[in-house]
This record gives sequence, C-alpha cells and structure tokens, in this order.
Amino acid sequence: MARATADHLSRRLADSAEHVPRDVEWLLGWLAERRRRNPFTVVTVPFDRLAGWHFDPETDHLAHREGRFFAVEGVDVRTDHGGARHWRQPIVNQQDVAILGILATRIDGVLHFLMQAKMEPGNVNVVQLSPTVQATSSNYLRAHRGAASRYVEHFLDPEPGSVLVDVLQSEQGSWFRGKRNRNVVVELPGPPPAHDDFVWLTLGQLHASLAVPNVVNMDARTVLSCLLAGASAACPGAAGSWLTRHKSAHFLTTTPIRLDRVTGWRRDGERISRPDGRFFGIVGVRVEATNREVGSWCQPLLEPASPGLAAFLVRCREGVPQVLARADLRPGYRDVVELGPTVQCAPASVADGSRPRFLDDVLAPGADVRYDVVQSEEGGRFRHAVTRHVLVEAPDAPEPPGFRWLDVAAVAALARSSYQVDIEARSLLLCLSAHYPAR
Amino acid sequence: MARATADHLSRRLADSAEHVPRDVEWLLGWLAERRRRNPFTVVTVPFDRLAGWHFDPETDHLAHREGRFFAVEGVDVRTDHGGARHWRQPIVNQQDVAILGILATRIDGVLHFLMQAKMEPGNVNVVQLSPTVQATSSNYLRAHRGAASRYVEHFLDPEPGSVLVDVLQSEQGSWFRGKRNRNVVVELPGPPPAHDDFVWLTLGQLHASLAVPNVVNMDARTVLSCLLAGASAACPGAAGSWLTRHKSAHFLTTTPIRLDRVTGWRRDGERISRPDGRFFGIVGVRVEATNREVGSWCQPLLEPASPGLAAFLVRCREGVPQVLARADLRPGYRDVVELGPTVQCAPASVADGSRPRFLDDVLAPGADVRYDVVQSEEGGRFRHAVTRHVLVEAPDAPEPPGFRWLDVAAVAALARSSYQVDIEARSLLLCLSAHYPAR
Repeated sequence: MARATADHLSRRLADSAEHVPRDVEWLLGWLAERRRRNPFTVVTVPFDRLAGWHFDPETDHLAHREGRFFAVEGVDVRTDHGGARHWRQPIVNQQDVAILGILATRIDGVLHFLMQAKMEPGNVNVVQLSPTVQATSSNYLRAHRGAASRYVEHFLDPEPGSVLVDVLQSEQGSWFRGKRNRNVVVELPGPPPAHDDFVWLTLGQLHASLAVPNVVNMDARTVLSCLLAGASAACPGAAGSWLTRHKSAHFLTTTPIRLDRVTGWRRDGERISRPDGRFFGIVGVRVEATNREVGSWCQPLLEPASPGLAAFLVRCREGVPQVLARADLRPGYRDVVELGPTVQCAPASVADGSRPRFLDDVLAPGADVRYDVVQSEEGGRFRHAVTRHVLVEAPDAPEPPGFRWLDVAAVAALARSSYQVDIEARSLLLCLSAHYPAR
Repeated sequence: MARATADHLSRRLADSAEHVPRDVEWLLGWLAERRRRNPFTVVTVPFDRLAGWHFDPETDHLAHREGRFFAVEGVDVRTDHGGARHWRQPIVNQQDVAILGILATRIDGVLHFLMQAKMEPGNVNVVQLSPTVQATSSNYLRAHRGAASRYVEHFLDPEPGSVLVDVLQSEQGSWFRGKRNRNVVVELPGPPPAHDDFVWLTLGQLHASLAVPNVVNMDARTVLSCLLAGASAACPGAAGSWLTRHKSAHFLTTTPIRLDRVTGWRRDGERISRPDGRFFGIVGVRVEATNREVGSWCQPLLEPASPGLAAFLVRCREGVPQVLARADLRPGYRDVVELGPTVQCAPASVADGSRPRFLDDVLAPGADVRYDVVQSEEGGRFRHAVTRHVLVEAPDAPEPPGFRWLDVAAVAALARSSYQVDIEARSLLLCLSAHYPAR
C-alpha cells in the first residue's frame, strides 16, 4: 500500500470506529426492508430433484453436471494430533477462489465501507450484511449466465496505492477442503454510484452491529478482521514462532476418496448424515429469489447437527490485552495447523470423556463473560450454521501444551498473512476489537 | 521478536555485512580440510539393492520400508496455467518438516552465524556450508537410530525474544509435493561450545562466499533470505496484492496416483526417467560417511537431466531497486502460485516453440549481466542439481501478463511470510543483496 495510506490507516480506522452516524435500529430496519423487497423461498428437495447436480458416476461426488461451483466429496484423514487419528467424512471442495471485497471511501472525512444486504439460502434470517462483492469466479465470470456481480471491476486490477489489504484466507477447515478466499479492501477517492441493497457504514456502525445476532455475515467479518492490525508494524514475532512450531510438529494427510466410501456415514434420498446424528449432514435445496445473479437454482448445503461454540479466554497483562490461543488442526487446512480460539467445537456433538479443554470454564455459571452473541457461518454453503461467539475474562487460566497466551496485537498482525489465524479466531478477534474491554 | 531486537536488527545485519574478518580463501581451505577429514563415498545402486527401500506393493511408491523419511510417488496434475495443462510425473513426498536453523550471536560486537560443513550425498562437491541444524524430525528424533543433531535443542522451544525469524517456506515445487521447511534463526547471548565441522561467519563472509560456485548450500541460502527484510516495516502492499490476484486466478489439482501410472515415464532396474531425456530421473545411491548421524545408508535421489537457470531482470527506478517478478505455478506448491524469478527453467529441457519469456534476453551476448554464479540445490534429495543464478540489468524490459516490476524491499517483506516467494527467487534475492549494484 502507498506509504501515506499506510502511515495513516490505523488512525483512520480508529476514527471510523468512533463514528456512529445512525444507530443499529435504523440499520436493522433497513435490512428488514431489503428482506421485504426481495422475496424468495428456500425448500429442501431430494437429491434426485436437485436440478443441475448429480452423484458423478466415476467418483460418486455430489457435483454440478458441468463441473462448476463446488462438489461434496469424500476424504480419508490421518493425523497424529488430537483424539481421533483416522476417519473418513464428506467435505466441500471448491477450487474457485471467491473475491470477498469491500469498497471503502471517505464520506465527510470519515472512512466508510460499502456493505451489501445479501440473501444467502442457508442464512437463518435470509439477509445479512455482506462485503460489497462476495462472488466466486463462477459468479463474476458469469458462469450462472446471469448478471455480473456489481462493483467487481474495482477488485480485478486495483491501483496499488488503493489496496488496504489483499490476502488469501482459509475457511472452515472441517467443512471445506483447502478452501481459500481473497479478502480485499480497496479505497476509492469518492463513493461510486449507489445501488439498492448497498449501504455505506462506518466501522463504528459495523461494531455496533456485532452486538446483534446474525447481522454481519461471516464473509464480512473475515475481511474486516484482516484490517485489525491496521498498517501497524506490530511483529507477529513470538506468536508466529509458536505457531510455526505447531505447524511443523504434526502430521496430516487428507486423501480424496469416493463419496460412498465415507465409513460411518449413510445416505438416503434426501440427506447424507451419520447414524449417531453427530457433526453435520448434506442436503439439497431449491432457491427462488429475485435479487441474485440468477432468479432460481438448486444446490447442496452442509447443515451442522447443532450450533457451534467459539470462545477466547482473555486477560490483560500490564495493560496489554491477550488471548489464550490454541493450535488447531483440521483436515481442510492447506497448512495443517492454524491458530484457533481457546475453545472451538459443537458442544452437543462432544462425546463423553473427550470434552475440549476449557469448555467447562467457558460454560461455567460464574464465568466472567464479556461478549456472548450468536453469529452465522457462510450462508452460501452452510444451512442454518450458527456459532455462539464468547469472550471470557480468565486472568488465571493456565497454558497447557498446545495453548499459549499471546498479545492480541501480535495475533492481529498474523491475520494479515495467509493460513495463520483460523476463520473463527478471526471472527472473534473482530468482536473483541469492537466490544472489549467495554462492558 | 522482542521490540529492542526488532528495532535494531536491520542495523545489526548491515553491520555484519560490512565485516569480513577472514577472506573467502581461508573459508574454502577450511571446507577442503573438512572434506579430507570426513571421507565418504556415494555410489549408484539398482533399486533392488537399495537397502531399506522398496516399491510399495499397494501404491508402487518408492518408499522406505518403515514408512520413514520420504517417498517417490506419482501425481496427476491438471491446471489452466501455462503450456502443459495435464500431465503425470514422479514427485518426492516428504511429510516431515525439516528444521533449517541458524544460530546467531555477537562476537566482538558483530553478529555472526554458526554454519556447518555438511556432507550431502547429492552435492557436486560433497561438502557445502549448511545451516547450524539441517534435520528432519526423522533425524532429530533419531529415526536413524544414530546421534541426535547437534544444537537442535536451541530450536525446539526458543525464548520468544531470541527468534529473529521463524517461518515455513516452500521448496522446489516441481520436485517436491507440498514440502515445507521451518526457516528459523535464533540469537544466543553468547556462542555455545564449538564442534568440528562448525564455523562462525559474518554476513559479509557469507556474502563473499556467494561469489563462488556451490559453497553456500540451498538450505542456508533460503534461511538467510528470510532475514533480508530485517525487521523493517516495509509493507508487501502492492507486491502482495499482485501475487494474491495471481494465486486466485489459477486452477491446480495435484492428485496422488500409483508410481507405475506416470504416463510418459519408464522404469528399468536403475532409473525412472523419460524416454525423451527431459526433466529428471530417479536413481538410488548407497552412501558411506563418517560424520553423519549414521555411518552408511541407502536412499533414492532425484537427478535433474540438465542444469537449471534462475534469473531476475533488475532495474533501479528513482534509486529504488526493482526485479521483474513472475507468477510461478508448480504442482507441488501448497498455495498454487508463488512469486518466481523472471526466468526459471532448465534451458536444455526447453522444447522448441515454447521458450520461456525473457530467456533469450538473459542469454543474449550483449546482456548487462551483474551476477552469474552456479549454486546448488539441496543435496539430501537431489543429485548434482545445480542452478545458474543470474542477475541482468534490463531497465527497459516490458511487463507482459503474469510479470510485474516490484520493489526488492517489498518482495523481501513478502519472503517473511509462508508460500509467497519461491525458493529460487529467495536464493536470487540473497545473491542480489550481496552483489548488486556493485560490479
């Protein structure tokens, strides 16, 4: 980024965080209005009525007939980390890299971000705030044969000095295989023409929205989290070294297999799932909408069996905020291990006798909870996938193997590089920056 | 890294670069002496006499019978980038992450690095300067059942303030599948006890050694290249954004297959290679040595068919040195595309009609060559693999698609993160820092 931009970015972000020109009630009203104006329906359909999709005769993968978009495949996973050391599971494989792009500009001298009221078929509340552009190349190259994504031209070859951040980040490593999205923020000298479904918000308004469940979607949260370090020269230093050692220490192979070879799972006409009801299922949906690139379509969705929990234990040491980071290995990570929240699991899927470390500390009645809000996972691939985001003050928590107290600023600096900080940790860091230590 | 360390690292590195306490002739003499004191032999042997190794009955991979170390496997590669879009090839798969670790300390106030005279079976000249520790976990956890690697304890859980850099980096993406090594430099308050085969050198001495062919081994070069940005806050900015777009733009799948399914290759009792003689072969060797962790062993090696060429076109713009970077896609990269040198190929293996862009500019008789020295690839996996490193001043070179003139400082900053700058580009950047623009 241009030197002048870099020098001032942190200050301009802080300034934007202090401005809340209109309150959250107004924003919630605007979102409700967008929902009313864009009626749509999502219904589950059996696999044999999932138009355009089939179980590929060669691989048995649940794939698009033209090979586009994404596929649900099988993988065989082996690792030397954690409780389970060998298992098989379905997983979503999407080679396309999505652009998650936010346009920024100064309005009345304050940095604003152009957010979209976007319908996704898996959202519990239909429409949430998304980045300006949230589109795979299948979309923006018009594989849908629909309209091109609005504003996408600003991200295809941006002016060097206009880029505030531009980095590939991982997605949910238990659900996606090797998925990576481009998290990018481009600043324009002035606001481009506005369209329905788009709104300019300050960072202060976005922070306030994070106090309400399921308003700021996951893609918006991950992009904004990449700006947390501003242009600070904060060095990931000790945090990076700790993570590099954990990335080096563990073995992981994720081998593609036929989808009908995923031992422990079963398939009927409407769902791929586990007899014990754990983890997730794969279902098909048919969508009718008016404001997407195409009017209607069918697609598979991954549906978690129960809500997730992502929690950081937090403390201050000599005025410096720290989180208790955890080395997190998931089959879909390109680089084996990423820095995850202290606790990251689906509590209802936790087996007896294998409760994650610190889960009980987070759920304890006397826990010093500073933030506790349900946020959504991405609604374009996941159905009704919500994760309770929790921050708990716990100054006396120990540091068992695989855990490390790290400065929040160092973790934020790590999040400016690819495949270091996992998507739930990035999302929590954003909530932390908005709502901690204020109580 | 600790703040005080970070603030001063760039200055201390520059200071070390200016000190050359003993000249290169002395160092070459010391290396020759180490070679004499550690006699060894390397002979090629047929695959059926490669003790400890076999073609695995299930996968046909050329693998260690106990599953250790590494394996030569087959892969099927599909991409939308470059000339060939679909091919099969053997590739080395090594899950173990090696520690490439250099100890540093101040001697007489000047930063010195502890380098090892290390024998590797594939080296053209047997012994080269390696990092203090160059060992896979198979080695340092004593899978060889030999002696543990000297000094390795300093890298297993270093003091946070002592780490100058600690990052995973890719290796040769056409020869290794998803390989990553830990590049780490740890500074000690004083020099630890010295051993034979180890020597303290300043950065100035290491730079001077880069003027001589095949002295500083590839592992040492890649670790030192990670220090090029010092602790500078130089932001990869535009360089990172350009690279992110190219990482996003291309499709690559690398699927494991049986080794006997690598179409276009043939195997006899002594070699896996191509009838047209291009690219590389796989051979077996037996090694007898006195100063390795174990006295003798057998292993496969990958032997390139001809020497490689890695070249950057270089220019200065308003006093700022720049290189012409190229988006480089290789089947073994974890993140699809990395920033590579302007030209990276084996000129003798280049097919008629598909000469890489700028190859003829580098080889032209009138080229303004500033550096032209043969350096070695890693001798533990590659046999007699050498790459001519070339820097050519070319201020008027254009910027075709897939190429971009970038500030050297920005590329060096990128090299502090994983999977951004490829191993040949990192090696060339180090040579550039040592020998350009001095002529």
